[in-house]
Amino acid sequence: MNGAESVLRTLAQSGVEVCFANPGTSEMHLVAAMDRVPSVRGVLTLFEGVASAAADGYARMAEIPAATMLHLGPGFGNAFANVHNAYKGRTPMVNLVGDHAVAHKPLGAPLASDIEGIVRPASHWVRTAPDARSAAPLTAEAVAAARGGGVATLILPADAGWDESLGPAAPRPVEARPPVTEGAIDAAARALKSGRGALLLGGPTTREPGLRAAARIAAATGAEVFHDTFTPRLERGGSRPRARLLPYIIELALEALRGLDHLVVVGSQPPVGFFAYPGLPSRLADPGTQITVLAGPEEDSVGALEALADVLGGTVPEVAPLERVALPASGALDLQTLPAVIGALLPDDAIVVDEAITASVFIQEATRGAGEHDYLYLTGGAIGWGLPAAAGAAVGAPGRPVVCLEADGSAMYTIQALWTMAREGLDVTTIIVANRSYAILEFEFQRVGASGDGAAAHALMDIGRPELDFTAMARSMGVPARRVDDVPGLASAFREAIAEPGPHLIEAVMA
Amino acid sequence: MNGAESVLRTLAQSGVEVCFANPGTSEMHLVAAMDRVPSVRGVLTLFEGVASAAADGYARMAEIPAATMLHLGPGFGNAFANVHNAYKGRTPMVNLVGDHAVAHKPLGAPLASDIEGIVRPASHWVRTAPDARSAAPLTAEAVAAARGGGVATLILPADAGWDESLGPAAPRPVEARPPVTEGAIDAAARALKSGRGALLLGGPTTREPGLRAAARIAAATGAEVFHDTFTPRLERGGSRPRARLLPYIIELALEALRGLDHLVVVGSQPPVGFFAYPGLPSRLADPGTQITVLAGPEEDSVGALEALADVLGGTVPEVAPLERVALPASGALDLQTLPAVIGALLPDDAIVVDEAITASVFIQEATRGAGEHDYLYLTGGAIGWGLPAAAGAAVGAPGRPVVCLEADGSAMYTIQALWTMAREGLDVTTIIVANRSYAILEFEFQRVGASGDGAAAHALMDIGRPELDFTAMARSMGVPARRVDDVPGLASAFREAIAEPGPHLIEAVMA
Repeated sequence: MNGAESVLRTLAQSGVEVCFANPGTSEMHLVAAMDRVPSVRGVLTLFEGVASAAADGYARMAEIPAATMLHLGPGFGNAFANVHNAYKGRTPMVNLVGDHAVAHKPLGAPLASDIEGIVRPASHWVRTAPDARSAAPLTAEAVAAARGGGVATLILPADAGWDESLGPAAPRPVEARPPVTEGAIDAAARALKSGRGALLLGGPTTREPGLRAAARIAAATGAEVFHDTFTPRLERGGSRPRARLLPYIIELALEALRGLDHLVVVGSQPPVGFFAYPGLPSRLADPGTQITVLAGPEEDSVGALEALADVLGGTVPEVAPLERVALPASGALDLQTLPAVIGALLPDDAIVVDEAITASVFIQEATRGAGEHDYLYLTGGAIGWGLPAAAGAAVGAPGRPVVCLEADGSAMYTIQALWTMAREGLDVTTIIVANRSYAILEFEFQRVGASGDGAAAHALMDIGRPELDFTAMARSMGVPARRVDDVPGLASAFREAIAEPGPHLIEAVMA
Repeated sequence: MNGAESVLRTLAQSGVEVCFANPGTSEMHLVAAMDRVPSVRGVLTLFEGVASAAADGYARMAEIPAATMLHLGPGFGNAFANVHNAYKGRTPMVNLVGDHAVAHKPLGAPLASDIEGIVRPASHWVRTAPDARSAAPLTAEAVAAARGGGVATLILPADAGWDESLGPAAPRPVEARPPVTEGAIDAAARALKSGRGALLLGGPTTREPGLRAAARIAAATGAEVFHDTFTPRLERGGSRPRARLLPYIIELALEALRGLDHLVVVGSQPPVGFFAYPGLPSRLADPGTQITVLAGPEEDSVGALEALADVLGGTVPEVAPLERVALPASGALDLQTLPAVIGALLPDDAIVVDEAITASVFIQEATRGAGEHDYLYLTGGAIGWGLPAAAGAAVGAPGRPVVCLEADGSAMYTIQALWTMAREGLDVTTIIVANRSYAILEFEFQRVGASGDGAAAHALMDIGRPELDFTAMARSMGVPARRVDDVPGLASAFREAIAEPGPHLIEAVMA
């Protein structure tokens, strides 16, 4: 058995079921081994940034890591932005990056590069297999590292693939996230019992067990419960316990956290602004607020929350479902009506992938009264994540409707994801919020104190010339598409797309 | 004057005229300054990999570096593959990468990352501006470093843009590439006078002055003249002195170099295979061939060639133009007819950008008899370079027709380049060689000794399901397009596209 097959078999034995791939010559032995290891499903992408975001979306839903298959340093470069998003969100992910054969690497061939160098800024675990015999054991280590909550990148020289191996390696035990100390729990309890307090939830705490524990803590102490602006996966809707979104806009975030005596952070870090702005603080909590980190991202944050709830003795309150927003009767599409249509029609059990950027906060608000659903946020701020993450989420949670809310500017970074949706018949409804500009930049332009609104500056934020036709683009990659510009059009297109299996794209032209 | 304006003014004073941009919030002050520094033209791209390849194509033709404007680590990640290509080809390029404000950076915001880490594997020069006062002097250094022949990357924290500067910095002197020693010239002369010898040209030596010197050397010594498989810019056609392409296919490369007593390398490195193959050598020259490096990539290779020619005393021979290939009368499109149509109809003074992959060698052969033209190769092996490099070449050489020969698989990595072509009205004719597969991988699969041709393996090399419609895709981004599947169709579409200004795309469906 060659090294490549030993790697794939080790992946399979370690529980990895899917590999999002964009291979090249140095990965051909891995490709060849796919037929001998059918329990690992290969999903082809046309661009590596699709593979990495798909692996991110997949693992957030499937709760097991996917592998990616990437071609040398430039292949990882193409994947980098979405690996960064996974890195920041601590999504489990195993990147297999091919390299030249060991003896060939130092000779300066065109594709030779310092792969470890480019990989390291976005990987929690990095190794290069020195030969075929070590490839499988390192694969087992990589999967265990990823399952522990992070990005593991294994660089596989071509001859580590084609030389003879020792066969697959047994799965390695996954190190559970360490529990926090009793002292940390006591400190958080004392903080929340003295004065006005709040919890800030991040990482794995925004799913039902964590939210339930947080609700108990809130019931016992009166603490308000916030969640990170960009949390990997928020379980919300229906009668689920709720947490309040910490706003993206820094003035609103400062306002939300104003006057707290204590802020207890769980599964996250003390809150900071997405960007710095001249004259505004970077740290979002008041200088007078005492911040207590109950559990950082590397600790067992859900366990810590539950232990804290036990100490405080609160019970889970009944949560009455919110009323769904009403479907507007008519009108053009704007930041009120488009979110309302989505909120009114969002199917139960949906997976929402949100990269709608300037429309996001309105959609987040309008979908609060929908039935139970998962909401996936952009954890690392690198745009071009939404479409492929939606594709990956659909692979990771078959049978559930995926709704991808995507800004037109962001969509164009990884538009190739549509082809993978069509190829795999994935049940993703993509709504392109088409405002024909990098509207977030027009918004941020003044806020960072930039002055002058001349033609040259605004040309760099205007993507409406020429106009992008997302319906033609989607069809060119095999995805049925409709363009709509009013409420009835969007409602009818959304209903139809949800009702019919497979991918659909709706270009929602904003007024 | 803030730091951002001082940076742009320094670029302008140092001779930089174009900035290919994909900005974000941290670059807003640079964007704002564009109106105050109109001599730097901003060209918007929808994806950073378009910006970096465009800067590469631009500088190869304009002979001055372009700047790129990129958004933090993930923005550079998206640009990485095509920065790598520039790095390997030593194209002058100045990357301006925004970062968080200095005090904000260590706080762990979503977009914070180790930018220097990801930049370094593809940059000859890397610096981070510590503040606004140092931004302009570092910009001048970056331009000088790029003009010296390489990729310079300057990281600009947001507050280095918005804080007050000391104004623009004066241009820094460019260090000329050092001349080679007389000893090196004598050694090369001795080598070529003793036994069967050949020259291998790379880097800047494949333009007319270098080719002329090489022709003199060949006339004096009988040496054969090769050029690198992937040289940045080959001036060829008409009555220009010719060099023989060192083949990509390793068996052919080994055959071409077989039996040489001496190989003199100029502006390049001793030849190695693009990939390693089991049982085949990585080094392409015979073990018995003595390799003499007359000038490495960092030395004055053209000057060295001319000095060698003077020592050897050869004169430039008359070069009779080759006969143009005939336009085939009819037939389906295949690896004979498609190249013949291009060779027969290639306009004089064209700039050919070749990322046709499996079709490349046939097109390279079929265009040898065309009139004078420049031929740009993929220097770093990272695909997704062709379309945006063609856009950049058109910006860098206005008035010249650009012909982009692009494989369907490779096209999809940076398809967003079409939009920039339409937006800027660039005179680029793109021919998509549509064989509906990663044909190079099907070709390489057996060659690396991979076995098994099962469905799962081949699925990862088949991009024909669903079929990509490049005409719809091009039109969706504002580029007129036609699909053709036979010789008359391609000939007529090619003639029309060349005759009409602005971008055109021809999807050439291979039989």
